[in-house]
Amino acid sequence: MAKFKHHVFICINERDESASRPSCSGDGSGRLKSAFKDAVKEAGLKGQVRANELGCLDQCEHGPVVVVYPDAVWYGAVSAKDVEEIVNEHLLHGRPVERLRLADTCLNTESCPHKPMLKRM
Amino acid sequence: MAKFKHHVFICINERDESASRPSCSGDGSGRLKSAFKDAVKEAGLKGQVRANELGCLDQCEHGPVVVVYPDAVWYGAVSAKDVEEIVNEHLLHGRPVERLRLADTCLNTESCPHKPMLKRM
Repeated sequence: MAKFKHHVFICINERDESASRPSCSGDGSGRLKSAFKDAVKEAGLKGQVRANELGCLDQCEHGPVVVVYPDAVWYGAVSAKDVEEIVNEHLLHGRPVERLRLADTCLNTESCPHKPMLKRM
Repeated sequence: MAKFKHHVFICINERDESASRPSCSGDGSGRLKSAFKDAVKEAGLKGQVRANELGCLDQCEHGPVVVVYPDAVWYGAVSAKDVEEIVNEHLLHGRPVERLRLADTCLNTESCPHKPMLKRM
């Protein structure tokens, strides 16, 4: 087997409640890795797709945040119930899930059209 | 600013000494993130490159392991003294550092030509 077809990174950063930015883990990102693991197995992609949890991806107001490489597709406000769709549509069939996708203009910016909707503070 | 030009993932997985596979952290991967942060700033790439530490990337015998996306270039046996070269050659000038690069045939495999050399058990 060669390199992974897709590599999924899930932010599980946890901040103190008094922090000025929200936490992906506070919005349930801790359940995403096992959901990805199950859905990847179910889709027959075991060994071709890896999911890793990690610290802050710096898109905190859009959390829970997931990024899929090498496509560099960023998803925001991801919940465990979205995972099967991401795996089946994007990872299996190459069709990113547009309703969850963060536009390039939403990344690494102070403000964007979706922030008020997604903001969980 | 849009998505990151490069996103660097550094395995800092730590296993018990009795584990059958080695740990990237045991080989000093904990020093890599700050080395990347410093080198990225020095190269004028702050905001364009992000480095994240995370758990097991499943290439344990080649550790410390670093993967750079969206290029999907995997590096093995990376030490802090290699970081400036990775940043300046690969991230700044688009030339992956071949001497540290893991071939596709070395990934997700039980055995490969480099394993005896890199094995730290």
